[in-house]
Order: sequence, then C-alpha cells, then structure tokens
Amino acid sequence: MSDALVVFTPSGKRGRFALGTPVLTAARQLGVDLDSVCGGRGICSKCQITPGYGEFSKHGVSVASNALSDWNAVEQRYRDKRGLTEGRRLGCQARIQGDVVIDVPPESQLHRQVVRKAASARPIAMDPATRLYYVEVTQPDMHEPSGDLERLAEALRSQWQIDSIQAGLAILRKLQPALRQGNWAVTVALYADHRGGAARILDIWPGFHAGPLLGLAIDLGSTTIAAHLTDLSDGSVVASGGVMNPQIRFGEDLMSRVSYAMMNPGGDVEMTAAVRLAINALVQSVAAEAGADPAAIMEVVLVCNPVMHHLFLGIDPVELGQAPFALATSGALTLAARDLELTALNPEARLYTLPCIAGHVGADAAAVALSEAPEKSEDLVLIVDVGTNAEILLGNKTRVLACSSPTGPAFEGAQISSGQRAAPGAIERIEIDPATKEPRFKVIGSYLWSNEPGFAEATAKTGVTGICGSGIIEAVAEMRMAGIVDAAGLIGNPEQTGTARCFAEGRTHAYLIHDATDQGGPRITVTQGDIRAIQLAKAALYAGAKLLMDELGVDTVDRVVLAGAFGAHISAKHAMVLGMIPDCPLDKVTSAGNAAGTGARIALCNVAARKGIEAQVARIHKVETAIEPRFQEHFVAASAIPHATDRFPELSRVVTLPQVSHNTSGGGDGGRRRGRSRG
Amino acid sequence: MSDALVVFTPSGKRGRFALGTPVLTAARQLGVDLDSVCGGRGICSKCQITPGYGEFSKHGVSVASNALSDWNAVEQRYRDKRGLTEGRRLGCQARIQGDVVIDVPPESQLHRQVVRKAASARPIAMDPATRLYYVEVTQPDMHEPSGDLERLAEALRSQWQIDSIQAGLAILRKLQPALRQGNWAVTVALYADHRGGAARILDIWPGFHAGPLLGLAIDLGSTTIAAHLTDLSDGSVVASGGVMNPQIRFGEDLMSRVSYAMMNPGGDVEMTAAVRLAINALVQSVAAEAGADPAAIMEVVLVCNPVMHHLFLGIDPVELGQAPFALATSGALTLAARDLELTALNPEARLYTLPCIAGHVGADAAAVALSEAPEKSEDLVLIVDVGTNAEILLGNKTRVLACSSPTGPAFEGAQISSGQRAAPGAIERIEIDPATKEPRFKVIGSYLWSNEPGFAEATAKTGVTGICGSGIIEAVAEMRMAGIVDAAGLIGNPEQTGTARCFAEGRTHAYLIHDATDQGGPRITVTQGDIRAIQLAKAALYAGAKLLMDELGVDTVDRVVLAGAFGAHISAKHAMVLGMIPDCPLDKVTSAGNAAGTGARIALCNVAARKGIEAQVARIHKVETAIEPRFQEHFVAASAIPHATDRFPELSRVVTLPQVSHNTSGGGDGGRRRGRSRG
Repeated sequence: MSDALVVFTPSGKRGRFALGTPVLTAARQLGVDLDSVCGGRGICSKCQITPGYGEFSKHGVSVASNALSDWNAVEQRYRDKRGLTEGRRLGCQARIQGDVVIDVPPESQLHRQVVRKAASARPIAMDPATRLYYVEVTQPDMHEPSGDLERLAEALRSQWQIDSIQAGLAILRKLQPALRQGNWAVTVALYADHRGGAARILDIWPGFHAGPLLGLAIDLGSTTIAAHLTDLSDGSVVASGGVMNPQIRFGEDLMSRVSYAMMNPGGDVEMTAAVRLAINALVQSVAAEAGADPAAIMEVVLVCNPVMHHLFLGIDPVELGQAPFALATSGALTLAARDLELTALNPEARLYTLPCIAGHVGADAAAVALSEAPEKSEDLVLIVDVGTNAEILLGNKTRVLACSSPTGPAFEGAQISSGQRAAPGAIERIEIDPATKEPRFKVIGSYLWSNEPGFAEATAKTGVTGICGSGIIEAVAEMRMAGIVDAAGLIGNPEQTGTARCFAEGRTHAYLIHDATDQGGPRITVTQGDIRAIQLAKAALYAGAKLLMDELGVDTVDRVVLAGAFGAHISAKHAMVLGMIPDCPLDKVTSAGNAAGTGARIALCNVAARKGIEAQVARIHKVETAIEPRFQEHFVAASAIPHATDRFPELSRVVTLPQVSHNTSGGGDGGRRRGRSRG
Repeated sequence: MSDALVVFTPSGKRGRFALGTPVLTAARQLGVDLDSVCGGRGICSKCQITPGYGEFSKHGVSVASNALSDWNAVEQRYRDKRGLTEGRRLGCQARIQGDVVIDVPPESQLHRQVVRKAASARPIAMDPATRLYYVEVTQPDMHEPSGDLERLAEALRSQWQIDSIQAGLAILRKLQPALRQGNWAVTVALYADHRGGAARILDIWPGFHAGPLLGLAIDLGSTTIAAHLTDLSDGSVVASGGVMNPQIRFGEDLMSRVSYAMMNPGGDVEMTAAVRLAINALVQSVAAEAGADPAAIMEVVLVCNPVMHHLFLGIDPVELGQAPFALATSGALTLAARDLELTALNPEARLYTLPCIAGHVGADAAAVALSEAPEKSEDLVLIVDVGTNAEILLGNKTRVLACSSPTGPAFEGAQISSGQRAAPGAIERIEIDPATKEPRFKVIGSYLWSNEPGFAEATAKTGVTGICGSGIIEAVAEMRMAGIVDAAGLIGNPEQTGTARCFAEGRTHAYLIHDATDQGGPRITVTQGDIRAIQLAKAALYAGAKLLMDELGVDTVDRVVLAGAFGAHISAKHAMVLGMIPDCPLDKVTSAGNAAGTGARIALCNVAARKGIEAQVARIHKVETAIEPRFQEHFVAASAIPHATDRFPELSRVVTLPQVSHNTSGGGDGGRRRGRSRG
C-alpha cells in the first residue's frame, strides 16, 4: 500500500494520499477548514486534530492504531510547554500511515462559527479581514539585490499563496529590525477585505507571534457610544464598554447638533474632535478592561446614524438638517483609523463604516439589517430600532423597505417630567392595580417590587430618582389599563378615577407614582404633558411602520423584532397596549438586543458580510417619512391609546371614563413643531 | 447626403458621420487625440480644431466652405472673452455638414509630445496620472436617496466612462459645498496611475475650473535638492529651484549620515525632519517663483539615492551602511504626500518614488535609465552619473548592467586643498602652457580668461576663491599634459618641471595656480594630496565602468553619456586624459545634463513611463562593486595618468619626467580606507 484513504469530519471531505503526507497537507489539498498560522512548522498549534481509531462503517473505513505516525518530539514539546488535550495531535506533525478518520475540532477550524446568544440569530462564520501569517524570508544577497519588502512578498507568495501585498511607511520602518531580530522569520498581520486588491501589512513581529488580533465593534449613538472588543480569531467578545457621547453638550438631539454646526462656524470641527476624543478614551478603557494592548486592535467597524457618521468623519452635517437630506456619501468606507485621529489603536488599524441607507436611515440601521437579515425571512418581519429616532425595517425574502421616524427623546426618558436615563434608581417596571389604582414598581439596581419587604433597604443607596424610557411606557400603558387615562390620552380627575393619586396640575391632571420627598427625593409623577410626549413618540413610530406596511400593501405583519438597548427592556404587552407597534401575536414580538452592535460585530468577523450588506442596502427600498402625506395621516390617527384592546384579555378590565372636553389634535402638529429629531 | 467623410490630421484617422455630429464627438468615436475637460459643453476650449477648406487630393476630399456648421454664439463669446486664433473652431460646437478635413493642433492634443532640449533625448508623450474633468451631477432626490459622492461617481461613469472613484476625507469635506456652490456642476482632479484601481479625487472645485494642475519633479541629492515645477497639461517647466540639503550638518557624505544615525538614537528621525522641512520650503519658493498656488501641486515624483530614499521616507538607513546593503524596499512607491509631512502642496497630493536598482544604486540611477533609455540604444552606451558616488549604466538593446562606484567627494571639489563648491569665484576652467608652465583660468561668474584684460575688474566682487570639481579635473589633466605631473601622478620639483610654480610642501611638491593673498584672498594650489584624491576618484569611476564592460565581455564602448549637473561641466577631453572614462572617440562623449531630474519629469508626465521603468529596473543586471575582486584590480590599475595618450595629439606634447621614487600603491588601499562613501 503506497497511499491511504483519509476522511475528515465534520466536513466529510475525503481523498487518498501518499503514505507520509502530513495531515495538514492533506487537509489543505482537500480544502478542509484546518487553521494554521505557522504554515506547518509546529509552532502555532492551530492545526490540532483528533484521529479516530477503530471501525467507521459510516465512512467505510477501519482505522488501525498506527494509522498516523508516532507522537513526535515537536508535539511532546508543545504539550509540555502549553498543554495539549489528550487524544489531540498536531496536524502538521502527524503523518498518514494508513486509512484514517480525522476530526477537526471547532477551535481548529479557521472559519469556525460563533454561535450568538439570541435564539433567532444566525451563527457568524469567522472570516475576518485581518489574519496572522508566519513566514520565513530569504536573506539578502548582494549578487541578487532586492528589498526586504520584496523578499517578504515573495515568501508570502510561495508559502501562503498571497498574490500581492502593500505596506505603509510605519511598516517599512519596522520591517528591517523585525526581520533581523527574528533571524529572517516574522509574523505579519495581513488585512485583505472584500474589496480585493493587495493585502495590507498592518503589523509585523520578529519570529512567531501568537496574537491576539483584536477588533472593535463600535455603535456610535447620539447619546452613548458602545464598544465591543472582539477576538478576531474566534469572534469572542473580550470586553465591552460604553461612554456618554460628549457631543451632548452641543445639543441633546441630533438636530440641535446640526443647528449648532449651522450657527457656530467651526462648530462641526469642535463636535468631531469631541467624539473622536471620547472614542480614543473608550478604546483605552475597553483594552484595559480586557488586559489587552491597544496596539493589538487592528480593525474597527463603526455603525451610527447619518449625523453621527458625518460628524465623526469630519464632514459638516448641514445638508442633513434640511431637505433633501443629502449625505456626502452613503457608501461603506474603509479608512485608516489614524486619519480619523483614533490614535489609541494599532497605528495601521483600518476602520470600516457600514453603508448608510438614506439621509435619515444610517449605518446603524444597516447594521440592524445585517444582524436581523429581514431579506432572508420567510415571514413578514417588522424590525424597529427604538431610540431618539426609530429606524424601521419591514420585509421578507421578496422585498425589504426602510424608513426612519422622528420619535423624539421621550422613549429615552428625556422631555418627561420625572424622566431620566436608565441608571440605578430609575423606575423601569410599573404595575397599577385596576381596582385600587395603586402602583407598585421596580427600580434599576433592585429585584424587589416597591410593595415587597426590604425594598426601602435595597434602594436606600440610590433612592428612587425618576422614570426611565421603558418605565414611562409601562406607566402610561398601565394607567390606560387601570382607567386612569382614556383612549384619547387624557388623565382623569380624582372623581373620575376614584383615586387621590390623580391631582390637578394647572388645567390638567397628573398621577402620583411615588413621593420620595420625605427622604429628600423627588415626587415622581406622570403628567398630562408626559402622556402627550409619549403619544407623539409612539404615534410617530407606529405611523412609520404603517407607512412601510402601506407601501408593501399589507395590513398585518407576521412578527415584530424590537432592537436597541431600549428595545431589550420594553415589555411587548405594554408596547402593544400603547399602540407603539402594529398588532401582532404577543409571542411573535421578540427583542434582538443591541442589533446594531451585533451587526457591527458580524461585519468585523466576516468580510463577506460587508459585501453582503453593501449589496443589500442598495436593494432596500427607502421611504422618506418627511415627504409622505400618509405619514402625517397615520401619525394623527395613531395618537389614541389603545387600538389593540381585543388582543389582550387584561384590557377588558379597562374602565371607561366619562367623557370630558379635551384637545387630541396636538399630536399631528407636534411632529412638525419638534422638527426632525434624529437618533 | 445624410452623412459625410471626416478626416483628422495629423493622425489620418477617418470615418463617416451623420450630418450634425459635433467634431468632438466624431473625434472621440474615432479615437482621435482631441482634448476636452468640460466634455463638450463649450466651457473649457481645449478642443480647438482647424478645419481645412478646398481640395485635399491626399485624402481624396474636396471640402466645401460650408462643411462645418456656422460659427456660433458660444464660440463668439469665447473669442470675445479669451481670444481664439483666426481659423480655429471649438470642436464641441462645430458640427459636420459635409466632407471635411480637420486638423488637431498640438495644443489641442491630450497626449501631445513635449520636445526635450537635449539632442539625444526622446520626446515625452503627455499622459499624466492627474487630469481635470468637468461633470454635471444629478441633484439629490428624496425618493431615490443616494450620497452626493455616489451621484458624482455616476456622473463620471456616464459622462467620462470612468469606472470607479475613491475620495479621501478631505474631499468628502469639500464635496457638498462644491456641488451646491457650482449648482451641481463641478470640476474634479482625478488621479489614475499605472497601477489601476479606482481613480482618486485629489481636488474638487465648484463649476468649471481651468487649472493649472502642477507636478513637482524633485531630485533629492545628498548635497542639493532640485525641484522642477511642471504643468501637467503640457509638460512645460514653469519654475525650477534648488536648496542645499540641510542634512549636510549631520554629515557631508552619505556614509557619515548613516553613521550619525547609528551613533545617535533618533538621529535618523532628525535627518528625516530636516530634509522634509527643506522640501516644504523649496516647494513654497518654487511655487512663488511661478506665481502659482502651492495647492495646485497635485503630484510629486522624487528621485534620490538609496540613503536619501530611506531618510526621506523615515526609514532608518542603518542596513545600507553595512553589507549586504539591504534596502527596506526597492520597489517604486506611491504615497500620500501628507504622510511624508509635505504640507506645502495640495493636501491630497500623491508622491511617487522611482524604484531603486540596488542597495547602492538608487532611484536617481533609475531616473537616469528612464531618461537615457540604454535598453533602447542600438550601440553600446556607457552612462555615468558623476557625484559623490558615481552611478554607472552600461548596455544596449540586448542587456543593461548597473553598478555604483564610490568616487568620494573629490569630483565635487571636496577634500581638495583649494577645493570649493561650484559657486561664483571658483575656478572652473584651466589651461597650462606646456612651454612656460604658466596657467590661465576662468572663474564662475566671468567669461574672461585670467590673462585677458578686465579680468581683475570682472572678478573684483567675488575674487578668486578656489577650484570647483570640473576645475580640479582640468587642472590635473593640464598638469599632466604640461609635464608637471608624471604618469604615476607625482608632481615634479622646480628643477624637473622648470617652473618656480612647483614648490616643495613637506616631502612632496605642489603647483601654484593663483596667489590672491595680496587681495586678501587665498593661495590656490594643487597639492600632491589633491592629485592623489583625484586619482582615487577617477580610478574608482573607471574601475566601475571597466567592471561592467568585463561583465558584458567588451573592451570598448560606442559612446559615453555624462549625466549630472557636474557631468554637464566636465570637459570630455580632460576627462579622458585623466582616465576617468574608458577610451571612446571624443565626439561620442555627450552630456545629458541633469538626467535624473529629466527622468523624474518623464515619470511625472507619463504614467506608462512609470510602469516601464519599474519593469526595466527588474531586468537590469546589478553588479555590486564591493564584492567583486576585479573591481579592486581595475581600481589599482586605473590610478595612472593618462592611459589614453594615443587618442590625443596634444598629449604628444607631454614631457617625460625623470623618474623619482614615490609610492603609487595608495590608490588601491584608499578605496577601502575611505569606506563606501555614497552620493
């Protein structure tokens, strides 16, 4: 027998190889996904495999115990130094001696899949732009003079089949010392993305360098900036962090920032500098949390709304503040991070921004589309990313539509009398007893309801300080279900509601949730103004969704996905009571968590996903709410609470109030009065 | 008749076109080289043509006087505003009405040739990387949202057939205001070089922008930096300038600078900063001289020796100071000028460096090869670029060889007792009467010989201050021809030479050329040490040339080209008397002037030339003098003066000196003692 049958699992790929062929070589020839950084030199240990011995009737193979060459000194040294799981071999050392079945464990697969936590989510196949390659370079020869870079390129060509490379000045500076220090062996980090062209050397180390290579997924919001530090070899998140967007001092919402840029020459430059500074600080703190060298961060994927996109890139956002809301560029960009003054990373790090969908529908919405993939959905899915601005996607395999709706900051607890950001002490859950009209609530930082024993002690440190976004939604919905608020959104007086918690405030009434004045805290109430603000916000959100449904010619959707950090905390029931989202069975409403951040991570881990979302964004049908007369119609029609009573048995408990005179037309105008506040 | 025959001259291209077709359209369809920046909108006037009327038997056409449409309002307006030569028409306005012969004058040809002054030189066909394009861009549409950049790309695709573009952040910043200020019409400067890929927007202007687009050819020498500001539309040099290389303060020659970098941590960084600062200042002064906006400078082509190449790029040159003299990279580079801190140019300007040939044979030698094109020569040509280091090329159509030879600074007047740089007051020409042994000379700044009336007055301002490089060569050669120096290079004593101008100085003798001490000036002499320094230098140069001839297996060359600013001033006769260059008929020795600078200009004006020289450099056979034992043999053998007596009747006058004891072996050692001084 001069050759033997080799079967790889889990791929099932098989072939015959000459006896003595290393397992890694066989895997490469068959196109089996088996990792290697050192190219088979027994250094990196990425090519670990598990041989199977015995009968494999499924594969028609009987594997003798000597089917692979003997355990060798390289393997022993590796096991002694770093440990090697029992039964594992190094694919570059073990040679084929007879028919054999070889299992490639997940951690040895180059394109291994990262299973995401959310149930609905697809796994991410690892295929990052940046990878490590170990190479041995020919020494210079005076008889055949050539540059060190040219000989490195030749080595990458012959040892790794990499056609062409390019190197920036910083790498040219490091090249010669690295080659000599490594005795003509180096490890390079090569960046090759979906655009093709020469692979770019991002870093170089003498000898073998094990990594890690890190990437940063950044979700740059108008209020907060979140970053996920990700290991580019396996997609794992090694640290996460967030900071407030310091641009808030120039304006709470995006339109105020655009105005600031318009009114103050150089204002855009100020805001650009502020956000870049904050990201640099965030990079450092996230790296410190992971105990990682910030120079190991090779790539950034950034998602954000169009105004943040322009302000971060240093483009005056003035055109986004007025019709026709033209972006300087809507395409995806690949840039040098240092050109954006992101100096805390590797000096050669690349930054990728996802494409913007339209003037109001940004790269963050594109990231949600990448994460949730409505274009692959069999049933009709409505995806809502709730923030200061709501990004709305509707579609299925046939067609996907997108729009943005100016919900305003009410859903984030802003412009609410007792509103506050989601922070310890903020009320996040509320229930109101329909009989007694008495509330009970939970605050962030405690698991106890306010009427449970120990609540006062548990919240002594933070106190009860206000209501956050998800809390105000529950409060309004519960007030409606308890008969404190009518369908038009008016809070009843004490006589109508039968509770002294409803008290007169000017010409309208408010509802007292909690009085903490005796502990020096605030009186937490829901005022008529708060109800109106929530009505405006939810009507805008609903109207946006409805507009897309009109465009698609449907009356219902099959399922709803709530995205965004806020979306993760909204109670689906209360959202539907409130009429935030169109009717849909409650069990078909799911939360995707921070889908924009997930989309950024996917783009970080898989270059094909970048290509895919760029193509998909071009195919998405964009609907501009600002110029659609039907949006205003839907908006006005959607201000009532609720319009989904029949779906909720609880709502039969809703008490019908005696009619009083009030004005319900504020909603329609309000949307215009507030202008287009985006986030 | 519904169509007509159109014949273009000088190309001779012809075709039939429907009546009413604009001449520009016909030219484009036939591939006739007719320029246009505005794309036929009657704005740029680049497409001027001259119709011929009457009989054209050569073309078989009889052209009626109404063969073109009538002179129109656009043409009239252009003539009124800017003038239009009689008989000229605008190709985009004049329409074909009948058979016609159309002449495209040179200034309307996009690829017009720039005729260079030097007789031997080939013309340069204009085909620069950077060009202007006027485009009209679709306005943004809220129903079909897309970025301004994406619509600009679409306009360039449909109006100019440009496949893909890219834009840096600075352009994204300028894009939106430019489009709006230009009412959706802009002119862009697009850079598309020989490497392919997306065309890069270097600048953008509202509406029509006439230019100019400028490029800078820089010859970065170890001693001086020369720059030629070139109009990229026609290749004309609009201003030239030079400055001293400020790195001189770190070391006169290149090896001292490499030593400085080795001995002083951060020394390379200091030198890099110094040279970049000097180039920025040079850019500003050259632009000011031309009355040009430095921001109009879109491209730089830089040529230099390998040490300057590394120091300019910010790469530590330490590896160039020791065998095997490895370059960090030998390939041609295209970089952003701003990454090299060249801030005086357009912020998006690109910089191209020609490839280096070997560790000692730099991009300057490649530029000489590009300018002189030995690979296209029918006869065997020896090209010598004389400087502190001599770059030597030898070859013809079959094969080209290159080496570098360490001549040292003597040829530049350095390390010569009365030596000085070529500057007013320096002796540049000398004749010595063989009978009287009396010298006469000319100094830079005066046309008079020193024995002519008025010389003292003419040189009163500068005085006679020393001898420059070409002067010392003539002095030594004339001393040999006058019998003051023997074949071994020894200066005779007063008795042997019969002149009191030969005087004892230590154990050897010197020759007095001029005593200016009574005017407070120096005593200008040629000492035995000077003769030795020149012998070393010329022996090194000769040995390098001879080594290449050995390699090619030839004893003679057909012609010699002396390149470099210094080469332009060397007398061919004296060079050959001295034995600087191999024997060759005197009329076959020509000067190519600053061939390196010319090569840089060619690369600036023609992208195909960049591709060509990159390929040619790879084909050039490199010879390393430092490791060739025969180099040392040739070097020792070449120290005698002269070895070409039979070719010069004047040399029959050479007086044979009585033999005295001396040591002629210094030359061979000297080459090693001096180390490898490169320039």
